[in-house]
Amino acid sequence: MPLQRLEQNPLIVPADVTPSRPDFRVVGVFNAGAARCGDEVVLLLRIAEAPRQIERDWLAAPIHDPQSGEIRVVRVRKDDPDVVFRDQRVFHYRGQFHLTSISHLRAARSRNAIRFAVDRQPALCAEGDLETYGIEDPRVTRIGDDYWITFKAVSPHGICTALAHTRDFRTFERHGVIFCPENLDVVIFPDRFAGGYAAWTRPVGNHGSLPEMWVAHSTDLRHWGAHRPVIAPRPGMWDAGRVGAGTVPVVTEAGWLAIYHGADANDRYCAGAILVDREDPGHVLARSPVPILEPDADYENEGFFGGVVFPGGSVADGDSNLLVYYGAADDKVCAARTTVEALLEHLGDGAGEC
Amino acid sequence: MPLQRLEQNPLIVPADVTPSRPDFRVVGVFNAGAARCGDEVVLLLRIAEAPRQIERDWLAAPIHDPQSGEIRVVRVRKDDPDVVFRDQRVFHYRGQFHLTSISHLRAARSRNAIRFAVDRQPALCAEGDLETYGIEDPRVTRIGDDYWITFKAVSPHGICTALAHTRDFRTFERHGVIFCPENLDVVIFPDRFAGGYAAWTRPVGNHGSLPEMWVAHSTDLRHWGAHRPVIAPRPGMWDAGRVGAGTVPVVTEAGWLAIYHGADANDRYCAGAILVDREDPGHVLARSPVPILEPDADYENEGFFGGVVFPGGSVADGDSNLLVYYGAADDKVCAARTTVEALLEHLGDGAGEC
Repeated sequence: MPLQRLEQNPLIVPADVTPSRPDFRVVGVFNAGAARCGDEVVLLLRIAEAPRQIERDWLAAPIHDPQSGEIRVVRVRKDDPDVVFRDQRVFHYRGQFHLTSISHLRAARSRNAIRFAVDRQPALCAEGDLETYGIEDPRVTRIGDDYWITFKAVSPHGICTALAHTRDFRTFERHGVIFCPENLDVVIFPDRFAGGYAAWTRPVGNHGSLPEMWVAHSTDLRHWGAHRPVIAPRPGMWDAGRVGAGTVPVVTEAGWLAIYHGADANDRYCAGAILVDREDPGHVLARSPVPILEPDADYENEGFFGGVVFPGGSVADGDSNLLVYYGAADDKVCAARTTVEALLEHLGDGAGEC
Repeated sequence: MPLQRLEQNPLIVPADVTPSRPDFRVVGVFNAGAARCGDEVVLLLRIAEAPRQIERDWLAAPIHDPQSGEIRVVRVRKDDPDVVFRDQRVFHYRGQFHLTSISHLRAARSRNAIRFAVDRQPALCAEGDLETYGIEDPRVTRIGDDYWITFKAVSPHGICTALAHTRDFRTFERHGVIFCPENLDVVIFPDRFAGGYAAWTRPVGNHGSLPEMWVAHSTDLRHWGAHRPVIAPRPGMWDAGRVGAGTVPVVTEAGWLAIYHGADANDRYCAGAILVDREDPGHVLARSPVPILEPDADYENEGFFGGVVFPGGSVADGDSNLLVYYGAADDKVCAARTTVEALLEHLGDGAGEC
């Protein structure tokens, strides 16, 4: 496989993270965005928390209250006839979906890109009525001295993508919702194109359309248009169920190279590579015929939601080496090494399979 | 009721429209945008067409082919076990939704706002792979000398909203997809706000969220951000199932006033009024407690899809009078008169019901 897991995996686990309040426990630290900032590598982590005390036979959903700014916990009996339990992440109560945890974003910092110190305080928390179920899965793109952060804003209104930016990962400025429901897994390109800035998005329709990766353009990163599909799930293949952008693309001689995730019909999440035109981020040149990383390690199959590797960011590590950070089993941060050359060689094998 | 149907209704019926090709028949002319242009009222009509010859026991879906630019017809037997027939508008075949008609946009022109001459040629037709199932439900907003047209672009990729503009309703310039799936019923405000241009949108998520009206902002009409919810369906009321913007808002002393549609759980579409803050199109001041128009007339209950009144545009008709154009039963254009005063008085009765 072109991706080689670090022997230090997992790099960060829930026990490494201080809960944001004493009555909560950390159930997951995963799906991090990544960037170099000064002489550090900064990961922007998704921290999922749940109430520490949940009575047997009960389900609990922590919900941000926009009025008070507090998190209140909704509890329902598992055997309540109005409850439909889907999996450990989600249940439905009276037709409304609920999450069993609520996520915030928090920074972790490292000098060697491997051993991280996790901040004791959140970087960004749920705010307002579009984030009552939390904020999730950040991606971080550096443009000049600014780091632009996209993240999922989750509430009964649906799943949107919001934008914030920072220069130091200590203070953050928010810029509202840039993609309305349903849209997630948004990754901004680090350079401008003829059509302005570009981002890969993951809209999902309500009429049987598949979870595809799209591209959108912007002149100011806050307003987006010129939406077009880029890649769709491929029936019968490893990414038959859904696809979504993962790492921020890096420019190569051959085009923009990135790592995306795909899931099959059983929600098994793998990682693949994608290469798009240098001038047109919507024009796909090549795409992994087989995964470059699949959930094989124990720490990828055992956890909050097993069978998941979910790439969220990468940093350059030497001239053409990449260190790719990924979420494992929805509760740990892991990393794998690769090189631009290895990814391009892998893509050369299946360049026809877009 | 504050809305009074014209006695000349229906104003335009399918027999008034020349098909775009000889082997097609017009099955609906409806859901028009409206604007004054020079000394004419122009309606931008949705024209739905189906193949003239459909064999008994067969279903046919006309589909735009982006490669050839032609419309090809997919035919399946009704008793094919892979067919799920939903209603006369839609069937599913092997999990994929299909429409039994394909729509284009066409202008109709009138000196008296009531008797219209329908162009013999389409104004805008399906183009590219996001419109293979056609384009639908235009809204027209005049800003300066430009008329900005939003419309649904429908394909297996989902339902998006595309943008075009014209100065004369004879030549049109397209500006791509401004809202990705799923988004429809987009109405642009005719004036700028502190946050730039504004539009009401109708995103629909995939996680049990309801079809709500949202607001978005733009600096150039082509790129949009700052998405926020505005109104949601109200359980137990006439708009319990879905809500969506209808006419372009008109400014009054009390705020921006518009007519929107709501449907109940049985897909019965009615019209109501909405009043929002003059400075903030996302801040609702009042909303119809009961419909201002419901499908009661025969021509609203009998047709391609009965039980529908669907407001799509209005024109000023005297100082504070409004002529509201609406689709009836998904196949005819109708109109009703009202006044700003009557709508505000109606809203005053239920101002608490937002």
